[in-house]
Amino acid sequence: MPSSNSSIVQQPVRTVFFISDGTGITAETLGHSVLAQFGVQFNEVRLPFVDTLEKVHDAVRRIDDAFEKDGTRPIVFSTLVKTEFAGALQSSKGMQMDLIKTFVDPLEHELGIEPAHAIGRSHNIANSIEYENRIEAINFSLAHDDGQSHKNLESADVILVGVSRSGKTPTSLYLAMQYGIKAANYPLIPEDFERGKMPSVLAPFKEKIFGLSISPERLAQVRNERRPGSRYAALDNCRYEVSEAEKMMRTEGIHWMSSTAKSIEEIAVMILQEMKLAKRSY
Amino acid sequence: MPSSNSSIVQQPVRTVFFISDGTGITAETLGHSVLAQFGVQFNEVRLPFVDTLEKVHDAVRRIDDAFEKDGTRPIVFSTLVKTEFAGALQSSKGMQMDLIKTFVDPLEHELGIEPAHAIGRSHNIANSIEYENRIEAINFSLAHDDGQSHKNLESADVILVGVSRSGKTPTSLYLAMQYGIKAANYPLIPEDFERGKMPSVLAPFKEKIFGLSISPERLAQVRNERRPGSRYAALDNCRYEVSEAEKMMRTEGIHWMSSTAKSIEEIAVMILQEMKLAKRSY
Repeated sequence: MPSSNSSIVQQPVRTVFFISDGTGITAETLGHSVLAQFGVQFNEVRLPFVDTLEKVHDAVRRIDDAFEKDGTRPIVFSTLVKTEFAGALQSSKGMQMDLIKTFVDPLEHELGIEPAHAIGRSHNIANSIEYENRIEAINFSLAHDDGQSHKNLESADVILVGVSRSGKTPTSLYLAMQYGIKAANYPLIPEDFERGKMPSVLAPFKEKIFGLSISPERLAQVRNERRPGSRYAALDNCRYEVSEAEKMMRTEGIHWMSSTAKSIEEIAVMILQEMKLAKRSY
Repeated sequence: MPSSNSSIVQQPVRTVFFISDGTGITAETLGHSVLAQFGVQFNEVRLPFVDTLEKVHDAVRRIDDAFEKDGTRPIVFSTLVKTEFAGALQSSKGMQMDLIKTFVDPLEHELGIEPAHAIGRSHNIANSIEYENRIEAINFSLAHDDGQSHKNLESADVILVGVSRSGKTPTSLYLAMQYGIKAANYPLIPEDFERGKMPSVLAPFKEKIFGLSISPERLAQVRNERRPGSRYAALDNCRYEVSEAEKMMRTEGIHWMSSTAKSIEEIAVMILQEMKLAKRSY
């Protein structure tokens, strides 16, 4: 579809294909990064698990059909590791962005190793140690969400603290899911501010604590979606909680950052960096 | 480090850099897919948020230091959207895999649009509708994990069912986190098998149900890690539960698959495909 951005001339319809012998997550991730630079919308088609020659031929037909229909050349981001499949895809009328061939060929030359051209190597395989770590981290993070459990806090890799709705839960789950990091999280609540101290159960783990803050305006907006018109969501209350929480983080000398206007991915990677945490799994 | 794979000649140490002006997730994702084809281990260095010329120069120094130390050319996967930064990185002694330039330049020609070369476009920005959908989906999936709540099941996009430890929780969270899909999940328990019916609360939502199964051997292994030597984890009990669950899924005529030896990503994408669910967010 054409973009609604008025600074850009109306564009013809363009279809983008993400074609993979696996999940297609790699093709989509890179494709989105590249396409985002052009500020127009594309008609997206995902074709995962294209792992037989028959499915490749079907993909070629769909690309050629889109070419007929749109009157513009479809753009094809593909990760087909088998040379035979990648070659068959080339027969389509699309503009080919072969992510594997583009980088594997020069690397083969540089490394002097023949590539395996084997499917399904890019994600954790179930049963591997990395996979087990990841599942364990997800279970840990779920069990230690919102201060639910104080058990085994010593095995946490990081403990996120912050006022309610500052982004602790999605960040903890993302750290576990993507990186195999055991991330507990604890809310900072008015009782903590009155005492002027972090929850005492966290005292032995100070070096693992990372604080998330948020702008009071954004916090009020988020809380109002959950409990409209409540004291909890009132801007003056949000201002008080955020100011007290930040004061506490400074006093205790812990690492912290604001989650306002950051994506979950950005917050997670910043925490990895600040806390010098090695990822446990891809 | 050299690979322990005996079929491969001992390789010299190679350092791989993932350099980005953002989180580096795109560079890492594609880099891993490509490197996985070579079956050797690399010494990995991540440099996210390289968003000033000073940081680019620091990255160049680190690449050149690795070259000195290893005696082999480092491999550099980079996503620096600013032409000035990408250009400055080229002065290093590394082997450059510039993921942006490689694909943006030909696309510029094809689309006839000038790329923005703007940082931070590849992930959801907080405040956007997609971002809100994603957070809402995570909250929904958490609230509806393991049959915890029957409320608002009508707004679920998918309801996963399966025996305890068949992979429902990580899959639900991944669907929410990555795709903004509201995924509830319900355990199938011995009481359900005795009645020979799905939990009655799910009856109105049959078209949203997707089943996960698992091999009894794998299930026993997973359950034994959690409750060693228990009846719950015994192989004959796992065989009974899996057989009853699969029988029920067939009788009810719902879509289902085995999660054995599949990654969370693979299971999630297969569910999207089978249930014809459009992703709600990147």
